[in-house]
Amino acid sequence: MASVQDISVSAVINLISALVFLLAFAIARLQPINDRVYFPKWYLKGIRASPRSSGSFVNKFVNLDLRTYIRFLNWMPAALKMPEQELISHAGLDSAVYIRIYLLGLKIFVPITLLSFAVLVPVNWTSGETLDHIEDLTFSNIDKLSISNIPSGSKRFWAHVVMAYVYTFWTLYILYKEYKKISTMRLDFLASEKRRPDQFTVLVRNVPPDPDESVSKHVEHFFRVNHSDHYLTQQVVYNANKLAKLVEKKKSNHNWLTYYQTKYERDPEKKQKIKTGFWGLCGKSVDAIDYYTTEIEKLTKEEDEEREKVKSEPNAIVSAAFVSFNSRWGAAVCAQTQQSRNSTIWLTEWAPEPRDVYWDNLSIPYIQLSVRRLLMAVALFFLTFFFMIPIGFVQAFASIDGIRKVLPFLKPLIDMDFVKSFVQGFLPGIVLKIFLILLPMILMIMSKIEGFTSLSSLDRRSAAKYHLFVIVNVFFGSIITGAAFEQLDRFLHQSPTEIPKTIGVTLPMKATFFITFIMVDGWAGIAAEILRLVPLIMFHIKNTFLVKTEHDREEAMDPGSLNFSVSEPRLQLYFLLGLVYAVVTPILLPFIIIFFAFSYMVFRHQIINVYDQKYESGASFWPDVNRRILIGLVISHLLLIGLLSTKDASQSTPLLIVLTVLTIWFHKFCKGRFESVFVKFPLQDAVVKDTVERTTEPNFNLKEYLQDAYLHPVLKGVDFEVSKEIDDEEKNSLVATKRTSRRSSKTVSNGTSEDQKTVGEIQLVF
Amino acid sequence: MASVQDISVSAVINLISALVFLLAFAIARLQPINDRVYFPKWYLKGIRASPRSSGSFVNKFVNLDLRTYIRFLNWMPAALKMPEQELISHAGLDSAVYIRIYLLGLKIFVPITLLSFAVLVPVNWTSGETLDHIEDLTFSNIDKLSISNIPSGSKRFWAHVVMAYVYTFWTLYILYKEYKKISTMRLDFLASEKRRPDQFTVLVRNVPPDPDESVSKHVEHFFRVNHSDHYLTQQVVYNANKLAKLVEKKKSNHNWLTYYQTKYERDPEKKQKIKTGFWGLCGKSVDAIDYYTTEIEKLTKEEDEEREKVKSEPNAIVSAAFVSFNSRWGAAVCAQTQQSRNSTIWLTEWAPEPRDVYWDNLSIPYIQLSVRRLLMAVALFFLTFFFMIPIGFVQAFASIDGIRKVLPFLKPLIDMDFVKSFVQGFLPGIVLKIFLILLPMILMIMSKIEGFTSLSSLDRRSAAKYHLFVIVNVFFGSIITGAAFEQLDRFLHQSPTEIPKTIGVTLPMKATFFITFIMVDGWAGIAAEILRLVPLIMFHIKNTFLVKTEHDREEAMDPGSLNFSVSEPRLQLYFLLGLVYAVVTPILLPFIIIFFAFSYMVFRHQIINVYDQKYESGASFWPDVNRRILIGLVISHLLLIGLLSTKDASQSTPLLIVLTVLTIWFHKFCKGRFESVFVKFPLQDAVVKDTVERTTEPNFNLKEYLQDAYLHPVLKGVDFEVSKEIDDEEKNSLVATKRTSRRSSKTVSNGTSEDQKTVGEIQLVF
Repeated sequence: MASVQDISVSAVINLISALVFLLAFAIARLQPINDRVYFPKWYLKGIRASPRSSGSFVNKFVNLDLRTYIRFLNWMPAALKMPEQELISHAGLDSAVYIRIYLLGLKIFVPITLLSFAVLVPVNWTSGETLDHIEDLTFSNIDKLSISNIPSGSKRFWAHVVMAYVYTFWTLYILYKEYKKISTMRLDFLASEKRRPDQFTVLVRNVPPDPDESVSKHVEHFFRVNHSDHYLTQQVVYNANKLAKLVEKKKSNHNWLTYYQTKYERDPEKKQKIKTGFWGLCGKSVDAIDYYTTEIEKLTKEEDEEREKVKSEPNAIVSAAFVSFNSRWGAAVCAQTQQSRNSTIWLTEWAPEPRDVYWDNLSIPYIQLSVRRLLMAVALFFLTFFFMIPIGFVQAFASIDGIRKVLPFLKPLIDMDFVKSFVQGFLPGIVLKIFLILLPMILMIMSKIEGFTSLSSLDRRSAAKYHLFVIVNVFFGSIITGAAFEQLDRFLHQSPTEIPKTIGVTLPMKATFFITFIMVDGWAGIAAEILRLVPLIMFHIKNTFLVKTEHDREEAMDPGSLNFSVSEPRLQLYFLLGLVYAVVTPILLPFIIIFFAFSYMVFRHQIINVYDQKYESGASFWPDVNRRILIGLVISHLLLIGLLSTKDASQSTPLLIVLTVLTIWFHKFCKGRFESVFVKFPLQDAVVKDTVERTTEPNFNLKEYLQDAYLHPVLKGVDFEVSKEIDDEEKNSLVATKRTSRRSSKTVSNGTSEDQKTVGEIQLVF
Repeated sequence: MASVQDISVSAVINLISALVFLLAFAIARLQPINDRVYFPKWYLKGIRASPRSSGSFVNKFVNLDLRTYIRFLNWMPAALKMPEQELISHAGLDSAVYIRIYLLGLKIFVPITLLSFAVLVPVNWTSGETLDHIEDLTFSNIDKLSISNIPSGSKRFWAHVVMAYVYTFWTLYILYKEYKKISTMRLDFLASEKRRPDQFTVLVRNVPPDPDESVSKHVEHFFRVNHSDHYLTQQVVYNANKLAKLVEKKKSNHNWLTYYQTKYERDPEKKQKIKTGFWGLCGKSVDAIDYYTTEIEKLTKEEDEEREKVKSEPNAIVSAAFVSFNSRWGAAVCAQTQQSRNSTIWLTEWAPEPRDVYWDNLSIPYIQLSVRRLLMAVALFFLTFFFMIPIGFVQAFASIDGIRKVLPFLKPLIDMDFVKSFVQGFLPGIVLKIFLILLPMILMIMSKIEGFTSLSSLDRRSAAKYHLFVIVNVFFGSIITGAAFEQLDRFLHQSPTEIPKTIGVTLPMKATFFITFIMVDGWAGIAAEILRLVPLIMFHIKNTFLVKTEHDREEAMDPGSLNFSVSEPRLQLYFLLGLVYAVVTPILLPFIIIFFAFSYMVFRHQIINVYDQKYESGASFWPDVNRRILIGLVISHLLLIGLLSTKDASQSTPLLIVLTVLTIWFHKFCKGRFESVFVKFPLQDAVVKDTVERTTEPNFNLKEYLQDAYLHPVLKGVDFEVSKEIDDEEKNSLVATKRTSRRSSKTVSNGTSEDQKTVGEIQLVF
């Protein structure tokens, strides 16, 4: 058990490291050379001109204006200044709503903290006889402020029960208000959006095969009959996975070509040689520039052939299509209704926006989809509860003895003292760390196997899996030590009333651990996020070796994006901790408040200046966020029940069960009240938008507008004119406003800027 | 433990009582005087003429033709003869699908029984050493055939595990086939149906109040804007509950009037007097005929006033409406889409057919609905687990001591030996029995409070509640003796792995109890069903006192209907028993097969000759049936796991868990594959029907047709002409075919025959 002193020391250490990160960031961001690392969003928007294009030579790389260093924290107020409406139009609704989660944390926990310190801390503190008398347990001052300080069977527990009620109702009230606010924001956002292809389009999956007609004709006939007044056009989906791979490969070869060309230009004397064999380690040695030039030529030819093949061969068309309607009303109707009497064919849903489409998953038959989900559910169960078994196996292998046995030729090496201690001390930890770093990728692959059709739904789905993992392995895993499968086994042999007791009783003792966790993961981790160390290094490497044109430099920027599938479940852990410890050990709450406030500022800054979202789903993740906070609330009730029944206060159990039931009911209520806003599109809004548009632009050619919106990105952009235009303007990046407007108009005409970039990549090769 | 002999005796007794019922039925049904009790369906259809209108006086009441008695079981083949297609058009899809549940039972259990007797019975029998040596438990021959006969840890348990697999896959296969078949039947039924108002109509609930417009105008404007091409007309809902009560009261008074008139006619000397006070027990004594005549006059006036008030006052219009569209496509679209951005207003769903509407529940606000469901869920929990507490209280009160204390003046009475033994022996049982008889009504009231808007959904909902009750209190309650709340308490303090063991281990011992139960409840109970003792008596009482015209006689018939909310959950108990005991004690299976076969015949007969369904929902209950059988399957797996782990065969647990997971997955799969057929209406089918109709009847006036379809039944039928016409034809009931056709055409023009009857009832009073 850590004392207040220990916690203070830890707090100071973590505060210092957070400060170091912040200082490093404050200095690094002022250097012109890093401008594209810390402000890529503005470059992508075309509003910011490179500071390197003016000024003296040194000024191009290092900021020598000392006055700017004085106000090194001035990014904080700046981040908070942008009003929400502007933020939405600047960064999209997804991002704007995402940072509202942190704000939500503050809204929930600031009043709870104040109340806790006003009521529960005095109640716990003044009941101070118990712990002084117990000698066998080491209790610290922190425990004097926690529920542990109250003797069993004391009447004082009523204060905790009443507070549990107050906190629960407050949380539900805030959640309700927030859900309402966000559903309004979403609807307003959708209503205010400009014309977009996905507003008129429905994704049709599981088109049944027809012996007499092509998929394209079949789809057209079906919708012409069943939506006769509204059908406009359709776009079949090509299986362009092979083509996409070729494009990818060509891009990589092209990067290598640029790399060797740059090297050659710097040192024309030295011939650049590479080996053609496995990973460049063996094989014939050839001239690098020649090699890549011919490779690229070869790939270009292959690519052209493949592209022709895809476009002409009927087998390349998968059993899915994007069907567009002449009004939003028509699309809304088609997306929400059942088309065929067989509910596994002609499945319709809102089309994701073009850049959000996950093309590989569009043509999975219903029964296969169903089997895949079963397998993945089973896999998730084993991954969550039994991941320690293979990890343990690898760790055993990564031990001294394991290496000696399997790789005997390494024996002299590992017998060296330094290597030995490294292997023994770090390797097992590193194996686990590597697994944890890989985990989000594994979960994403699992979600992909499950067959979701849009990147946004893949993200949401992975987040759900990760959330389960975090709750089981981080939260419960920290409270009850031992691997998850051991816990599982124990719980299977305990009664349902025993489990909350087992966990509840250890709860107060783990408070100090979680406080440290919050400081390390929450405070220092978030400060590291703003420094963007990895993108910083990557940008400078790329900048040195791959950048020749201004366009290349734009390519080298890695703005990154909010990684919803990882950051949201982690964030949920803080809600869970706050809700659980609000009644038990209120001293933990200020740490959580600092986390939320600090994160809010950092992410607001990142969203404004750095991140470039890959898609815009209109905050469709909010139902998940709401549900997970409610899960946290239910867990907090159950653990409190357990804790109080070990304290001879089990007469409070029915009262707390009422809270649990109420919380679950609130979830159902919210689901019925708001969730459809995030799933369906109300016809009333569709009619309003249709009417407005028909009045203002009566002669707009919608069919032409939608023509190629849902073409696979690699099948687009075979015309050279557009690409040249891009290059021209890319160089002339000072003409900011003009470029922005052109960009947005291009986005409309060609789908998305993501496609645009890909197009640019393909064409650069020629 | 009952031996084979005990079981045989019980079987003989129950077979005899079943035979007595059957014989009584066979004789009673041949008497012309009972014709309307045993063949009401045909009267209602207008196909059967009363046998009493011809022949000699005696022949009118008693069948003297002895030849007909010889073939007293010939109703059985007759019941089986009608082909399914004819059955559907004769009795409706609901009934035809309902009896398929019994057929499904046969399809599942006949092969399972054969396999069990071929494999498991020999395996159990030949392993016969164990039980002979154990002296402290009394084992019977039946146990020699059950799994109890196999020693712990025997390899023979593999046979049971393999059979569990075979049975599960067989059950799932049959369930899948049946679900597929029934969804096709439903779609074909819907497609083949004639034009009906509900095909074009959507029920709109939670119409938001508008300060400037009436509900009617508001609804019209909203749908004219948002479904501009499809909106046709709308019908607001009047709050006619008070009026309905008046009508009801008048009808009851009218019955009394007829009763006293009949009495007076038979014995004109004696003046019929009644007392006007409480329940006719006290108050002023007046002439009965005069009293009721003035009462009816008064009520008629009140009724007219109320009717005027309802039709003119804006407050009498509730916030719901039936909106009709000019095509099935338009209605299907409106029913399946979200209208407003606020998902708690303008809620649309398919309108139930007019006679299926539950008028009282149409205008409950969303939040109130949500609270009501919460309260009812809590109430159901307490009802299921704690119902024994109030019953026990009443039982205590109903004991000798209780009565002595509370009603001391009864002391001399209850001290009589006969009364004493009656009170002690029967009263507690009768209290419980009364509760069990009242239970379905309590559950139905709970479902009504939950706010469902159609009789069919109320039935389905009550069935779900009753199913829970049956599983907890009948199935588990019989296996583990003790009240449900005691079980609940025990389970809360046992580990999740312990619970299946506790139940599993007592499972084989309870086989004989359940065999007896099947014979009493299943065999004799079903035979009693066909005799229809209560309707038989009621008909003759009514016939004697209330019937004056042929129409009154038709009124006096009580055809009854399939009571889905009670009979389906009871039936599910047999599936559960069969699935659980298929592996454990196969000897139980033949009893279940006899139950299914016998019930199938009886209910087929009843459906053809007796029952008159109140509504037609198109077998929309099937998803529930399928789900409940799967619940039974999962319970059977869990109990088998428990049983085998007490038999030192817990290595089979993972194998059986796989089965459970598979079953749950199958449920999800079926849900996705078929359920939407029972909830939504595919647009493809709607278009086909619309097109056909437009081609064949291009000039049909749909608006006029739909005009009054959804008027509250008591608001209809104020014209006297129609009622006279009915009376005329009612007397002339030999003109069968003409009448049928008139009836069906009337059904079209006026909604339903149910309404028709109500109309008749109202008008008879004048």
